[in-house]
Amino acid sequence: MGRRILIVGGVAGGASVAARARRLDEFAEIIMFEKGPHVSFSNCCLPNHLSGMIENSEKLVLMNPTQFKKQYNIEARVNSEVIKIHREEKTIEVKDLKTGEKYKETYDVLVLSPGASPIVPPIEGVDLPHVFTIRNVVDIDRLNRYIQSGKVKDIAVIGGGFIGVEVAENLKLSDAGFNVTLVEALDQIMSPFDYDMAQILHKEMMDHGVDLILGDGVAKVKEDHIELVSGKKVQAQAVVMAIGVRPETKLAEESGLAIGETGGILVDHNYQTSDRNIYAVGDAIEVYHKLTHSKTRLALAGPAQRQARAAADHMYRIPHRNTGVIGSSCVKIFDINAASTGLNEKTAKKAGIQYDFIYIIPGDKVGLMPGNSPLHLKLLFEVPTGKIIGAQAIGKGDAVKRIDVIATMIMMDGTLEDLKELELCYAPAFSTAKDPVNHAALVALNILNGVYKQVPVSKVRELVEKNAFIVDVRERAEYEAGHLRNAINIPLSELRERVDEIPKDIPVYLHCRSSQRSYNALMALQHMGFENIYNISGSYLGICCYEYFNDQVTDREKIVTEYNFN
Amino acid sequence: MGRRILIVGGVAGGASVAARARRLDEFAEIIMFEKGPHVSFSNCCLPNHLSGMIENSEKLVLMNPTQFKKQYNIEARVNSEVIKIHREEKTIEVKDLKTGEKYKETYDVLVLSPGASPIVPPIEGVDLPHVFTIRNVVDIDRLNRYIQSGKVKDIAVIGGGFIGVEVAENLKLSDAGFNVTLVEALDQIMSPFDYDMAQILHKEMMDHGVDLILGDGVAKVKEDHIELVSGKKVQAQAVVMAIGVRPETKLAEESGLAIGETGGILVDHNYQTSDRNIYAVGDAIEVYHKLTHSKTRLALAGPAQRQARAAADHMYRIPHRNTGVIGSSCVKIFDINAASTGLNEKTAKKAGIQYDFIYIIPGDKVGLMPGNSPLHLKLLFEVPTGKIIGAQAIGKGDAVKRIDVIATMIMMDGTLEDLKELELCYAPAFSTAKDPVNHAALVALNILNGVYKQVPVSKVRELVEKNAFIVDVRERAEYEAGHLRNAINIPLSELRERVDEIPKDIPVYLHCRSSQRSYNALMALQHMGFENIYNISGSYLGICCYEYFNDQVTDREKIVTEYNFN
Repeated sequence: MGRRILIVGGVAGGASVAARARRLDEFAEIIMFEKGPHVSFSNCCLPNHLSGMIENSEKLVLMNPTQFKKQYNIEARVNSEVIKIHREEKTIEVKDLKTGEKYKETYDVLVLSPGASPIVPPIEGVDLPHVFTIRNVVDIDRLNRYIQSGKVKDIAVIGGGFIGVEVAENLKLSDAGFNVTLVEALDQIMSPFDYDMAQILHKEMMDHGVDLILGDGVAKVKEDHIELVSGKKVQAQAVVMAIGVRPETKLAEESGLAIGETGGILVDHNYQTSDRNIYAVGDAIEVYHKLTHSKTRLALAGPAQRQARAAADHMYRIPHRNTGVIGSSCVKIFDINAASTGLNEKTAKKAGIQYDFIYIIPGDKVGLMPGNSPLHLKLLFEVPTGKIIGAQAIGKGDAVKRIDVIATMIMMDGTLEDLKELELCYAPAFSTAKDPVNHAALVALNILNGVYKQVPVSKVRELVEKNAFIVDVRERAEYEAGHLRNAINIPLSELRERVDEIPKDIPVYLHCRSSQRSYNALMALQHMGFENIYNISGSYLGICCYEYFNDQVTDREKIVTEYNFN
Repeated sequence: MGRRILIVGGVAGGASVAARARRLDEFAEIIMFEKGPHVSFSNCCLPNHLSGMIENSEKLVLMNPTQFKKQYNIEARVNSEVIKIHREEKTIEVKDLKTGEKYKETYDVLVLSPGASPIVPPIEGVDLPHVFTIRNVVDIDRLNRYIQSGKVKDIAVIGGGFIGVEVAENLKLSDAGFNVTLVEALDQIMSPFDYDMAQILHKEMMDHGVDLILGDGVAKVKEDHIELVSGKKVQAQAVVMAIGVRPETKLAEESGLAIGETGGILVDHNYQTSDRNIYAVGDAIEVYHKLTHSKTRLALAGPAQRQARAAADHMYRIPHRNTGVIGSSCVKIFDINAASTGLNEKTAKKAGIQYDFIYIIPGDKVGLMPGNSPLHLKLLFEVPTGKIIGAQAIGKGDAVKRIDVIATMIMMDGTLEDLKELELCYAPAFSTAKDPVNHAALVALNILNGVYKQVPVSKVRELVEKNAFIVDVRERAEYEAGHLRNAINIPLSELRERVDEIPKDIPVYLHCRSSQRSYNALMALQHMGFENIYNISGSYLGICCYEYFNDQVTDREKIVTEYNFN
């Protein structure tokens, strides 16, 4: 008889451990125990059922127990909760949730892949029947049936992380014409992005009719509305709670397994827990962050896959390299693609890493090509080493490609010099001869090398309000079509003859559409002896994107005469 | 007075040197001399004028001399041919092609960026008025006017490289309904791809109505047809010669500058020629290949950009890193995207590098998502080091992203282990939890580590013809819908009960749809004691793609009962 491998949890991590173990050992006895009715479903596609993009929710289930048995000789027991681990005798206690019956199984190796569960805040009305969380196919089915019943017109989604945003988007894309409100307690959605980049996401949500409420939390859930902390009331006949997830550590804790500092199950290099006969993988564990050198939690499918494989490999003495995680993720929100990798400003600060960043908005492909659009790209690098530590990209074009390239750079300990020289594929339909990532490296090296100084878009409002000397170097027609309230227009093409209009004794701030021309103007002026001169990083496109959302939801005065987003 | 920088050639390389030099030095006198009527046009977009995608050919010109003067204070003299360099006195002789007048200009620094010119074979009829080459806006305009005049129905394009393929594609996409024949002397188009991958490109061309003639050259051009070496005649009222380009080295040679072993202008680390006051960049020079450690020529815009910047930087004592080139390129052909980087089998063999490769066909994104499609991915690695040396990807999905990631790996000297652990962005709309590049690394490591053996799709015909023992492990319905002529169907789900049907004493070859299930089957069988067992790399999808084109153009017997490409 072969080795007995029992696995708690039959979705991403668990199923991957099982499949890999089978390939390494035809004779092991492998049993997965899954609390829910399905193993191996596509978590990440769950929200797409709400829009009808994936019409039949059964399609979300990728493999059933019969298929596991036939194809891989793996036993998958659904509706089976593992309620206790007897580590000394190497047995688990399982409860059949259909019959209530309890029984024991012995193991040689046990793998915990219980995942993480949605956090439900302890507020009034949270257990009303029209309040939903989303974790599996049953949940999404239940939510979808409820909202499609004809009783629901207004839906509130609480939480602006991946799940909340994807649920809100898919609800809005549904033919049912729901009014969708997304409520987020922080001042931005999608925490992998910094506040500046998040403004582009806010605009996209708003442009597609999602009512976005930031900086406010839910206080009470009522029959037909929710009440926010601010006192504001939001109509809602259905409420989706998506404020976050909590690692499922109960079984591990009760069994005396060590829990890490972040609240996830503690594992070593090989995903072994504090009991060497027990492995743990997936959303329930804590992992090592390659850049911060500290423990973190990460609910992402890619790392879970690798953990699962590494754990199975380790059972069979196949070593692996544990590179640590960097946190690469992406999301499609209506018409834009958004991706990020590594650290953002918040996480870099928190880790005490000295950094600087640049923000550029090059074209995604050659300007002449149909479908060309601006790509917003933010790159973070360590100071003074120039080591690349993070990036965020948003646009209608291939944001994910650029972030994947930078993620690769980060994994390979690349610097700005490496990124500058990177030889990537170019054809007009896909990129520009100087790819946006090369471009980003060049700008970042200019900053790192002190070639010139910059100010971020987040400082422009203050500059305008204190009436700083801002020069818009776009051509006249561009200026006329929309500009910063008190910027002076000296087109690059007139710069050399009108240079006397620019003072040398006070700070001067330059911008154009996307910082390309203002960079050229700035270099010329510096050569002419101007010393107190700054490029506005992101330029007019960046300023408009940064200002737009808050301009719409507050009654503050606009600093631009007309927006330009192209 | 500032430094005098003269530049021969005002397109990609030349214009980039000029713009960069201006940013580094406001007071330099910078003059570009361009033989043609335009500076700074988009070479790479020229073919798109033929389809009407870029309707107005004037849009191909990105900047005119007036703009260069006004915005950058750079003088651009068009219709100006530099005919001589007097190196001792540091002057050039310029011929004004409009007036015929000749004059001299002195330089402190001279930059050669003359590009490369289309090769025209010395055959009968090649100077007839309906024979065209394509190098600039004038050429493409002339061709387009000619074919749109109503006299042309059939067009022959000679040469299956980037330009030939893009011209053929755009001619076919034009509303005019041309019959387009593409003639290529080699047995495949698009030399960056290996013969196996090129079959997918051949299929795409054929599927879109391009008449593809391989392994045949043009012998004569006649008034209304061309005659091929084989004697075959092809109707053509217009002929486009795109068999390749030759670096423009005449001026350099006549000036006594050293020419390299590959026929390009010899340059050093800093793009200085054998005369230290003369730099050279772009398609006319020879460059160092990072992987083969030898000189090569590369007509690509990305490297030209970097060379231009490095040359200008060097004039101002800013050092740069010369990483060597790897040759990353991509192309859109009708509905598919194709990209390659580094070495392919041909170039690896030529360089004497010991290598192996894998060929996988994963989904571009999660199977449930609309628009999901197979991605053909070939990865080459050095043996025994596992260093990644090249890759090719083709599909309707994001082939370019995957090749850009692998190009980054190659630039960073990455190995299969690095690629395996790469943490990339994942969401169902963009990828799979195990990205195709991670997947490729896992398969390649299995081959490198001797976990199992594989045979390539190119060997399958031979296996079928000698009646080898081939097991198709797809499910019965899949087998019924199309299979290898003499393959036996033992579905993975029946494998363990029907294992006795598989002989242990002869080689056994396994395949499924994309090698995922056959890999699982193979591992199970190996554990059961089967030793002489092979996975067919690429499996049924790969076999169908490999066989399709030649099945159509020859009368050989098919080895598949029905093709499957999805």
